[in-house]
Amino acid sequence: MFAEIITIGDEILIGQIIDSNSAFMGKELNKIGVDVHQITSIRDDRQHILDALDEASKRADIVLLTGGLGPTKDDITKHTICEYFDDTLVQNDQVLAHIEKLFAKYISTPISEVNKQQALVPKTSTVLMNLFGTAPGMWLEKENKVFISMPGVPYEMKGLMKNEVLPRLQKRFDRPYIIHKTILTYGLGESSIAEKIEDWENDLPSFIKLAYLPNLGNVRLRLSARGNDKNLLEDTIESKVLALHDIIGDIIVGYEEDETIEVRIGKLLVKQNKTLSLAESCTGGKIAQLFTSRGGASAYFQGAVVTYATQSKVDILGVDEEIIKKFTVTSAEVAEAMALCVKEKFKSDYAIATTGNAGPEKGDGDVEVGTVFIAIASPNGVFSEKFVFSNLRDRTIGKAVNKSFELLLRELRLNKDLIAND
Amino acid sequence: MFAEIITIGDEILIGQIIDSNSAFMGKELNKIGVDVHQITSIRDDRQHILDALDEASKRADIVLLTGGLGPTKDDITKHTICEYFDDTLVQNDQVLAHIEKLFAKYISTPISEVNKQQALVPKTSTVLMNLFGTAPGMWLEKENKVFISMPGVPYEMKGLMKNEVLPRLQKRFDRPYIIHKTILTYGLGESSIAEKIEDWENDLPSFIKLAYLPNLGNVRLRLSARGNDKNLLEDTIESKVLALHDIIGDIIVGYEEDETIEVRIGKLLVKQNKTLSLAESCTGGKIAQLFTSRGGASAYFQGAVVTYATQSKVDILGVDEEIIKKFTVTSAEVAEAMALCVKEKFKSDYAIATTGNAGPEKGDGDVEVGTVFIAIASPNGVFSEKFVFSNLRDRTIGKAVNKSFELLLRELRLNKDLIAND
Repeated sequence: MFAEIITIGDEILIGQIIDSNSAFMGKELNKIGVDVHQITSIRDDRQHILDALDEASKRADIVLLTGGLGPTKDDITKHTICEYFDDTLVQNDQVLAHIEKLFAKYISTPISEVNKQQALVPKTSTVLMNLFGTAPGMWLEKENKVFISMPGVPYEMKGLMKNEVLPRLQKRFDRPYIIHKTILTYGLGESSIAEKIEDWENDLPSFIKLAYLPNLGNVRLRLSARGNDKNLLEDTIESKVLALHDIIGDIIVGYEEDETIEVRIGKLLVKQNKTLSLAESCTGGKIAQLFTSRGGASAYFQGAVVTYATQSKVDILGVDEEIIKKFTVTSAEVAEAMALCVKEKFKSDYAIATTGNAGPEKGDGDVEVGTVFIAIASPNGVFSEKFVFSNLRDRTIGKAVNKSFELLLRELRLNKDLIAND
Repeated sequence: MFAEIITIGDEILIGQIIDSNSAFMGKELNKIGVDVHQITSIRDDRQHILDALDEASKRADIVLLTGGLGPTKDDITKHTICEYFDDTLVQNDQVLAHIEKLFAKYISTPISEVNKQQALVPKTSTVLMNLFGTAPGMWLEKENKVFISMPGVPYEMKGLMKNEVLPRLQKRFDRPYIIHKTILTYGLGESSIAEKIEDWENDLPSFIKLAYLPNLGNVRLRLSARGNDKNLLEDTIESKVLALHDIIGDIIVGYEEDETIEVRIGKLLVKQNKTLSLAESCTGGKIAQLFTSRGGASAYFQGAVVTYATQSKVDILGVDEEIIKKFTVTSAEVAEAMALCVKEKFKSDYAIATTGNAGPEKGDGDVEVGTVFIAIASPNGVFSEKFVFSNLRDRTIGKAVNKSFELLLRELRLNKDLIAND
């Protein structure tokens, strides 16, 4: 069962937007046992769309298209699809009623002609209702191949995939079993892990594949098993993961898909009814943003102070001005004082503090660009570490964030009571 | 001059990572007049790589590959490239010395055999030194077509593009002129803008293309002109942009590529020596993170308080507890009090405050999920607005952030002195 994804839009090829839709589709299709063999991004061009449809249909059973269904002029996808299927556009009343309803509810301007045209669909298509937008999805078939066209707006495409496309594909095709297990590690690089688990890796059966996915200091290991005997796959993956835990258990964060180190931290804190606050300087709110980007953070996250200006470390957090004068603002002493102060201000059990210089220029402190001090305050006291990450600003911020998570997770794991059932 | 990009890696097709490399390459190639006509993402599979190379080389003059050059076992790209060019791998001493140097400087573990193997390159290739990593880039030619292979780690690929690939391509090929002008707007949707500028759009000459790029309530308009007469392109784009300004100048943020609304705000503030602070509740630090994600924020950004827990609005910001009791935590009154308090705490000239419920569940307040109050404090006082954005958490946060920027920018623009030369 092979699928291909075609994303349409000059804005992708010119690099004005990043194609995140394909990743979502790839992940969801994979979960139901449909293999994506190729993703092709092409221009808003009639001939290019026709060629891509033709080539993809030779290789794949399912072709998913996104993009090119917006209300404005740069969109030609729908007409080209019509041409490819030798079909004509007809008005769909259900879609038109839906567009009118959306406009009445959310949009203050009157419904426009271009929006009304979104209710036109190929006559032979099955309309997939788009709950989150005006452009409908379309399901077409040709020579036993399935073609699905969706708008390129990510949340609209996601809604269509979940509500319409995935359930329909599951009904339409028999699929093999695919099981993925993703293991998030921290604190060791890709090659160091590879050397540690070399024997284990060589011992994997041929139906299990291993991939290394590094990101800013953390590496994910992904095991993929495929076959028709579901029990065999599950049992083998399970025993392999147990064996892996014996080798590198100390650097494993968790085994859940989509589980990040900050999610793990949140779960540990909630379990023990502990709370967290943050004092961020060089990380500028990024740590707070990651903790709060998913629902449920209010169960453990008290808040944060982003003390970007040096004086605000004194005025808002209450850091002793003398410490800053004596050790400079980018120092272990200031990081630790920030952590202790913010922990007290928010009455939290734990606190993270960062102070450093992410560049591009030297700031108030006199340290090398890329230098960051991270402090962790806990019921046991406070400690800090110094790092020199990178001369690239976003990498320094990203690595400081990951390292902050790593230090806090290590600290939480020292507390045996806290992780009794982790 | 056509280019194609091939990104290699099961992790892309399975959706475990988003391919952001292609967008960067597309943008940079486009700037030097090289058109990317297709981006193809394929598996770590010998035959698939060979097929993709073959097909791309039929259509394009330049083929760029990324991915599959890491030190671990799931990488087969280099051997397949060797096969495609009928070449053999040889050790490159310069690369080996570079790997040894990187290990000595940044990595505490000893250099491994797998890392040493990264110094192997096809004999006929020109090595492109990778300053930020151990895997080198490679430049190969076949039948007058250029093939460039780079590692998939984004900052390594970016360094190679800037230092090696783009300068070499500029020397190697004659290219047409391409001029892009991107106009960021705010406050109006795609179709409303389309209706307002319909006549202007119909009047565009055939060598200028217009695209609408909507994102969370803001729309970018991109004009692309292409041809051999550079002056004609520049003059036409300039007059078209002036004409556009006459129609929708009130909703235009700016005209610089990569200029976001927060960058525009930063420039306006710096120009007048004004400062900003933030009190974020439901946006959780996202606004602070965006202001600080680029260098130079310290010139105007004082800091932020993320008051996630209700009590912290009282304890840290000093919001009157009675106001919260009387109006609930998600109210115009609390948003305005937060803005005034944080402005005073940080001694800033302007402040943004957000309070709301991004969901998925109802929180301390009793408002509908998606409700957000945004307040702006300025030297002229304070005001707030209520919004109901979405029942999707990340969209509500994203829209609240954009709307905060919009309200602040409007406020800054009311100050005639401040924008005298904007």
